[in-house]
Amino acid sequence: MTKRNLYLKTTPVEEALKKYMEALESEECLLPVTEKADTYESLGRITAEPVFAKCCSPLFNAAAMDGIAVRAASTKGASESRPLTLNLGEDYKIVDTGDPVKSPFDAVVMAEDVIELNDETVQITESVPGWQHVRPIGEDIVTGEMIIPSHHRIRPADIGVMLAGGNLEVPVFRKPAAGIIPTGTEIIRPNEQPQEGDIVDSNSGMFAAMVSQWGGRPKRYDIVEDDYEKIKAAVLAAAAENDMVIINAGSSAGTEDYTVHVLREIGEVVVHGVAMKPGKPVILAIVQGKPVIGLPGYPVSAYLAFENFAGPVIARLAGTGIIAGTHSAAATSAATSPSSAYGQEEVIQAVLSKRIVSSLKHREYVRVKAGKVGDKFVAAPLARGAGAAMSLVRADGFCIIPQNSEGFEAGELVDVQLYKDRREIENTLVSIGSHDMLMDLISDMMAGRFPGMSLSSTHVGSMGGLMALQRGETVIAPTHLLDEETGEYNMAYIKKLFPGEDMSLIKGVDRIQGIMVKKGNPLGINGVEDLVRARYVNRQRGAGTRVLFDYKLKQAGISPADITGYDKEAATHMAVAASVASEEIDAGMGIRPAAEAMGLDFIEVGVEEYDFAVRTADLELPQVKAFLEILGSPQFHKKLEETGGYGWHQAGRIIKI
Amino acid sequence: MTKRNLYLKTTPVEEALKKYMEALESEECLLPVTEKADTYESLGRITAEPVFAKCCSPLFNAAAMDGIAVRAASTKGASESRPLTLNLGEDYKIVDTGDPVKSPFDAVVMAEDVIELNDETVQITESVPGWQHVRPIGEDIVTGEMIIPSHHRIRPADIGVMLAGGNLEVPVFRKPAAGIIPTGTEIIRPNEQPQEGDIVDSNSGMFAAMVSQWGGRPKRYDIVEDDYEKIKAAVLAAAAENDMVIINAGSSAGTEDYTVHVLREIGEVVVHGVAMKPGKPVILAIVQGKPVIGLPGYPVSAYLAFENFAGPVIARLAGTGIIAGTHSAAATSAATSPSSAYGQEEVIQAVLSKRIVSSLKHREYVRVKAGKVGDKFVAAPLARGAGAAMSLVRADGFCIIPQNSEGFEAGELVDVQLYKDRREIENTLVSIGSHDMLMDLISDMMAGRFPGMSLSSTHVGSMGGLMALQRGETVIAPTHLLDEETGEYNMAYIKKLFPGEDMSLIKGVDRIQGIMVKKGNPLGINGVEDLVRARYVNRQRGAGTRVLFDYKLKQAGISPADITGYDKEAATHMAVAASVASEEIDAGMGIRPAAEAMGLDFIEVGVEEYDFAVRTADLELPQVKAFLEILGSPQFHKKLEETGGYGWHQAGRIIKI
Repeated sequence: MTKRNLYLKTTPVEEALKKYMEALESEECLLPVTEKADTYESLGRITAEPVFAKCCSPLFNAAAMDGIAVRAASTKGASESRPLTLNLGEDYKIVDTGDPVKSPFDAVVMAEDVIELNDETVQITESVPGWQHVRPIGEDIVTGEMIIPSHHRIRPADIGVMLAGGNLEVPVFRKPAAGIIPTGTEIIRPNEQPQEGDIVDSNSGMFAAMVSQWGGRPKRYDIVEDDYEKIKAAVLAAAAENDMVIINAGSSAGTEDYTVHVLREIGEVVVHGVAMKPGKPVILAIVQGKPVIGLPGYPVSAYLAFENFAGPVIARLAGTGIIAGTHSAAATSAATSPSSAYGQEEVIQAVLSKRIVSSLKHREYVRVKAGKVGDKFVAAPLARGAGAAMSLVRADGFCIIPQNSEGFEAGELVDVQLYKDRREIENTLVSIGSHDMLMDLISDMMAGRFPGMSLSSTHVGSMGGLMALQRGETVIAPTHLLDEETGEYNMAYIKKLFPGEDMSLIKGVDRIQGIMVKKGNPLGINGVEDLVRARYVNRQRGAGTRVLFDYKLKQAGISPADITGYDKEAATHMAVAASVASEEIDAGMGIRPAAEAMGLDFIEVGVEEYDFAVRTADLELPQVKAFLEILGSPQFHKKLEETGGYGWHQAGRIIKI
Repeated sequence: MTKRNLYLKTTPVEEALKKYMEALESEECLLPVTEKADTYESLGRITAEPVFAKCCSPLFNAAAMDGIAVRAASTKGASESRPLTLNLGEDYKIVDTGDPVKSPFDAVVMAEDVIELNDETVQITESVPGWQHVRPIGEDIVTGEMIIPSHHRIRPADIGVMLAGGNLEVPVFRKPAAGIIPTGTEIIRPNEQPQEGDIVDSNSGMFAAMVSQWGGRPKRYDIVEDDYEKIKAAVLAAAAENDMVIINAGSSAGTEDYTVHVLREIGEVVVHGVAMKPGKPVILAIVQGKPVIGLPGYPVSAYLAFENFAGPVIARLAGTGIIAGTHSAAATSAATSPSSAYGQEEVIQAVLSKRIVSSLKHREYVRVKAGKVGDKFVAAPLARGAGAAMSLVRADGFCIIPQNSEGFEAGELVDVQLYKDRREIENTLVSIGSHDMLMDLISDMMAGRFPGMSLSSTHVGSMGGLMALQRGETVIAPTHLLDEETGEYNMAYIKKLFPGEDMSLIKGVDRIQGIMVKKGNPLGINGVEDLVRARYVNRQRGAGTRVLFDYKLKQAGISPADITGYDKEAATHMAVAASVASEEIDAGMGIRPAAEAMGLDFIEVGVEEYDFAVRTADLELPQVKAFLEILGSPQFHKKLEETGGYGWHQAGRIIKI
């Protein structure tokens, strides 16, 4: 237990950022550097100084129309009844749009209003005022005029006017260089073959992208093992070569977490430990005048700590000057847009679909799926673990549980900071219920076939889905619940749970349920009755697969107490399969594609019906229509065939209940 | 008048896009190409196929906490009163977060709950359930699981999970290459010294940035002169080398507009001429299976035509599959974000501050400044000319006048499609009134000192500004109106126009007004009385400078009819200066900095007071407070001193009226 770091206290998020920013400011570590950018290459850069036009546009008095240039004074009196005849050279000159209009000419007559007599003579039937259809010099841009202010993100039209105004270069803030140092003896590069105990360095790639998104230039360094001197040398080298440094991880309190000690020796540690979850073990330090930030190793912690601390520092160095402040920004749909990373994200009020309990010790960031059901937004909390990187990928936004709050109740209205545009959320079909990989397939096809629409699928088991549908928190509820009395799937449950309501069942797929065992079936499992000899992994309460398992156990006259691991729960078929593939587990129940994905053997137990409960009125929603179209499409059936283990002869059929 | 192209008819915008897209689809010109991207470099790219995990994360059952790994079964019965003693190796193993938890161990006790007796013996005081604090294999990502769907824009967190899931490469849509060909004998490169009649090619740079923004790779070609064969060769070469081609300009009906003839010879012209303004002379063609789009030469026309036609084609080739449709998108604050270019922009309802008249023949796109005044949004139309590139730079959004409408009345509620975030608009200080270059200075300082705030300044003259203030369309109204009776500035006008209202005057600057003449003053102008000998350029009706000029004329006993050019109007001091610098004009009235910017001589006529009318209640607005702080700041005074011609002893003082 030696050499563990102790956090005597953690600092609240705002206080930590403020303290760090003030320390960085007092040591002048946040001054952006100005450089000249080629105007052609300046899209998205931030102007460091205002840009003044070096020439006028137009450069001269120019014809605004195709036609003839004339002397306005000489056209007086021309009319339909007394047309005026003009001679080329003397009285007029042919001009195209943009041609100079020079003395003695001072007006333009449109080609449409000119009667051509011959190549050198024309007639006009109207007098023209001076300067008609002439764009005067400098009409658009005048020499010396400020055309682009400072602190402005350059857009295409800005590039146009800068070039028109003679500005071939533009003063911009240099993108700050951020060195990224992965540390840890157990850490390997993603291209290496992992051994047990190895952890793939996926954070460096994520950080590099985040640095770009916040307006910096990432520089990834090679992995440094857990060695005090090597870490010290790496930080010093990176601080010398960059404007700031990110070191990952070793910021925690493990036996080999040297980072904080190194940073104390070679610099100043302003903050160690922030009252946020995930993300607590953050180190905010200054080394040789450069910001050095130690981020935790868990991907979600790393992400949130980056957004709250590293991002704002990059933004300051990049000259955008805005402190994103106290909440995690970005992860936005506009992946290459730093602007989205700076701003405040859009906030919606949503009904929380599940209770969240949190500690008073820290502020917690809970990732949620969001969707519109009826006229309200609903937020379903995702996996809260610091290691649940997929929760970041799946999230539509997050809600914050303040440091002084114990959490929120289900049904409570909460603020959700969106990662996406609100309209994307509104075009999302919300599904809460049982898990099947075909939901991923449909989600993928939805994005391709119905641009702008998407499927948001949360897995809480069949019963959980139906209860969410009762509460109005989902539009469809995938379910495969066997009625033990009738042997019928789904219908009985919906009738019982929605008495008097106008409900429908969208038929989905038949799927084969079975027992997954290790390749070669070493324990010789042939049915549920053999599971008393195995270390089992179960599904969570309310999952259709668990209902089926309980039914089969009952049929076989086996008590749950006789099953080792009956209480060990996994949330999806794939999680069961992964457990069975590990040393510690022998068997679990689930669907064939999951077994095949993990290279397991599969013992068929029965065929079940995986369908979708829906309120009949919602069948008219465009998202539901798109969903139905996909269910019935040959492309979808082909994918099911490729996957194996499914039947689809009823897919997309609607049964009124 | 030979060789002019005639548009027999123009096609409505939607119809033109639909016709073109259908033609491109039927010739299979819109199929995106898939390529593999290095996952590390994939930020912002669009997935062409779903991404499936190649390995689990975690790769093994892993400790979720720092502590000791134990056998759960062996901890039964441990309690405060009967602590259990464990021996290293046999009963426990020290683990850090992320370390493997292997058989026989199956649970973790947190370091905080472990009592250390010596280096090899510990005690625990609680029994633990199996798998406590253990992250099971595949908890986050399971082999074979779909982790990223297709048609998805890759974000930093996606890169993290792809690397964690063993995906070093990701299938993405190739960015389509778009060749950009500038044409025109009068066109010169921005780095060349312009001669009269020359036009700087500023469009190519703007197009290149727009191509990037819409998700393509721009390739700029050198300027091609107006020569049929040369244009033909250039288009054929670019079509062979790129996925699409943009040719600019020559799409109109001028004498040397060869483009449409060339495209007819070597390909198919699907549409020539669209019922939109600006932007009518668009050519939508197909050459050798590649989309070739001829865009008009005027920058605003070019921009709008690009957004409506070239952008959607790039998006399709880039695999985003979304047709932006019928309105100009983008020009957004998120300059490097193509997503903003695809989506529908945010639309607000705003009160139109000025009447807009339009023709029934086309749909018109009017750029507007937008701001929030009180509880309503206000939209002020900007210069509508196709050559007014600065209107694109200054615009906060645009409104569309439908093809079948004659326009909108002042005060009418119109839809404004925003180029910016609605919140940026809400943080903008709206100023409508007289023009002075110091408004640019303040705008620039505002962005730097008050991040997120900005100043939107529209120039309609002093009287126009006060009337906008009356109608509640602006927060401040810059004004310099001389009361001929009292000789006092501004106060009398505000009293008269806002009877009974609680108004204030924010004192601005003293500034010297005078007559601008050519360098060396060739006509020997010494005062207003000498202007009868000059070709004059006036300011627009309601401008304070014009009021002063009229006053001076009256004092000198000169009739406006005696001034040549009294009716020729320019909208800003700089526009007057630019005119005076040209051959056709000898003199105009304005402020010294404008004269100096254009290298003109300046004959002082008087000192005037340039102030800001405001409702007293609005002095509390944060934007107005920021404005006041800048007015009073030494940095601002220093800039005025550098510019010359200003006094600032009262700047920022508030006078209640």
